[in-house]
Amino acid sequence: MPTSQPSPTGEAEAENTLAAIGEFGLIERLTKGRRPSAATLLGPGDDAAVLAASDGRVVASTDVLVAGVHFRLDWSSPEQIGRKAAAANLADVAAMGAVPTGLLVGLACPPDSPIETLGALTDGLWAEAQSVGAGVIGGDVVSSPTLVVSVTALGSLEGREAVTRAGARPGDTLALAGRIGWAAAGWAVLARGFRSPVAVVSAHRVPEPPYAAGPQAADAGATSMIDVSDGLLADLGHVARASGVRIDVRTAALTVPERLVDVGAALGIDPMHWLLTGGEDHALAATFPGEVPEGWTAIGTVAEGEPEVLVDGRVYDGGASGWDHFGR
Amino acid sequence: MPTSQPSPTGEAEAENTLAAIGEFGLIERLTKGRRPSAATLLGPGDDAAVLAASDGRVVASTDVLVAGVHFRLDWSSPEQIGRKAAAANLADVAAMGAVPTGLLVGLACPPDSPIETLGALTDGLWAEAQSVGAGVIGGDVVSSPTLVVSVTALGSLEGREAVTRAGARPGDTLALAGRIGWAAAGWAVLARGFRSPVAVVSAHRVPEPPYAAGPQAADAGATSMIDVSDGLLADLGHVARASGVRIDVRTAALTVPERLVDVGAALGIDPMHWLLTGGEDHALAATFPGEVPEGWTAIGTVAEGEPEVLVDGRVYDGGASGWDHFGR
Repeated sequence: MPTSQPSPTGEAEAENTLAAIGEFGLIERLTKGRRPSAATLLGPGDDAAVLAASDGRVVASTDVLVAGVHFRLDWSSPEQIGRKAAAANLADVAAMGAVPTGLLVGLACPPDSPIETLGALTDGLWAEAQSVGAGVIGGDVVSSPTLVVSVTALGSLEGREAVTRAGARPGDTLALAGRIGWAAAGWAVLARGFRSPVAVVSAHRVPEPPYAAGPQAADAGATSMIDVSDGLLADLGHVARASGVRIDVRTAALTVPERLVDVGAALGIDPMHWLLTGGEDHALAATFPGEVPEGWTAIGTVAEGEPEVLVDGRVYDGGASGWDHFGR
Repeated sequence: MPTSQPSPTGEAEAENTLAAIGEFGLIERLTKGRRPSAATLLGPGDDAAVLAASDGRVVASTDVLVAGVHFRLDWSSPEQIGRKAAAANLADVAAMGAVPTGLLVGLACPPDSPIETLGALTDGLWAEAQSVGAGVIGGDVVSSPTLVVSVTALGSLEGREAVTRAGARPGDTLALAGRIGWAAAGWAVLARGFRSPVAVVSAHRVPEPPYAAGPQAADAGATSMIDVSDGLLADLGHVARASGVRIDVRTAALTVPERLVDVGAALGIDPMHWLLTGGEDHALAATFPGEVPEGWTAIGTVAEGEPEVLVDGRVYDGGASGWDHFGR
């Protein structure tokens, strides 16, 4: 059918590119044969999707990832990039105490993008969504000079109160679920041109957020919670300011994994710095008034005072003073 | 707080740019003082937003707009671009028979983007959302070589059945709400370097979707509905294929507005071509088994047959055969 405006994807360059098969062709390729998630009442292919929101509320979060800024196609496979894009958003939903139910994906891609690349990226998005019982319910594919992946995750609180950043109270225990420092170590390795150790590099490529720990924490009475995406101290800073509390992280409670000790030694970097400041692992940090639930580790305390985050009672100086964690 | 990975927005170039005030500074500027919509249970500022979904379902749609592809900063003001980005998505929600309740906005912007531009763009998003009682409930701002605006609209069916593209039945009447052809005419004017007539150019810059007609059509028993975003014939093609019906558009029922007659005459273009193939006005097309509700205009019929769209009983040839509508 004719359209009045020239299509940006109208010039075919190669048979296996977005330009060649067009937006609708690509969407068919990306959606065909996918199994809708339980909450999907109407999936891709109409003007909008319809998703169950069983308790009359929906949790929603959007993240945008840009090629060359948030990911590199020479560092990660398209599938890994898709997984990571989904994980970042699904973790945001979990951090509210919700269970993810659906993803919407916006792909802005250069017309010469190989279909195989976009297919693998979509495979990654689906795989990560399905790992938590969710699915891709809709999206958009457009032409763009830069590859940009925009993901919106939706989730269900299943009757729980949302756990915000603003509820931490003096006397609460700070606790952590999931890994920290790994993605930063992986980034440091990749930035120096190395491709191993694989476990460390993989952590940068595909995070492993502890999705189930989010609703679990909400059920256990967490007063505040946040997805650790920018770094533990930076993200706890958001909690401290939103809650009006002082948070003290106890480094003795943070076990530096053997592998990060090794990589840190090789690169001359104190691995504790990665644990305190490294983002993109999507651990969850939460505060609890009472006992910390199973699977969570107490790593600090919440006190009255100017909203700030301390490390062992001191303002963190970026590692300049040198924590000696190599010897542990 | 330090982060392990260098911030893409770390290099300040001018005081009033994204690079200078950073992501968090910009988010504060963009969200401060905005009035949350009625359905917003938790707005921007946490890991995720929480939105009411009163009947236990949420309608969701994502659109991505790319600078230079979907909009031009020399053709439209940032506020107009924001309005249009929101309108495209809100219309998708309306086309399901739902009332829009919230928007999530992903902004990928060059670091040297003036804050004023991003603020005006956000003003436009808010203005369009508020025009239907919705609000911006969350989003993300990141650095990117290309300006990309990704919008996810959420909405509530309020107990209605979703109206898909797949329910049109032989014997139904095809009807239209809202304007068609205007944005295409505006595009044609702008593409030739003109900036008037203002009403026509404005139609390209900011569409005026008939949002309320969506839920109204659902209440009136519409069997199928679609947002006319790619052009009437193209979008009816989706309905014809999804429903397995033949759709016939009667041009005698399409009134060519005086202004489009004038512009068409000036540019040597049959304005009926704009009405049949022009996108971006975000009219709604729906099929009704019985009477067409008030505010809707019957413009054709639905019949058994190969899924296709005809114009006055014939396959449309792109206007080559020449409909004579100049004289009307």
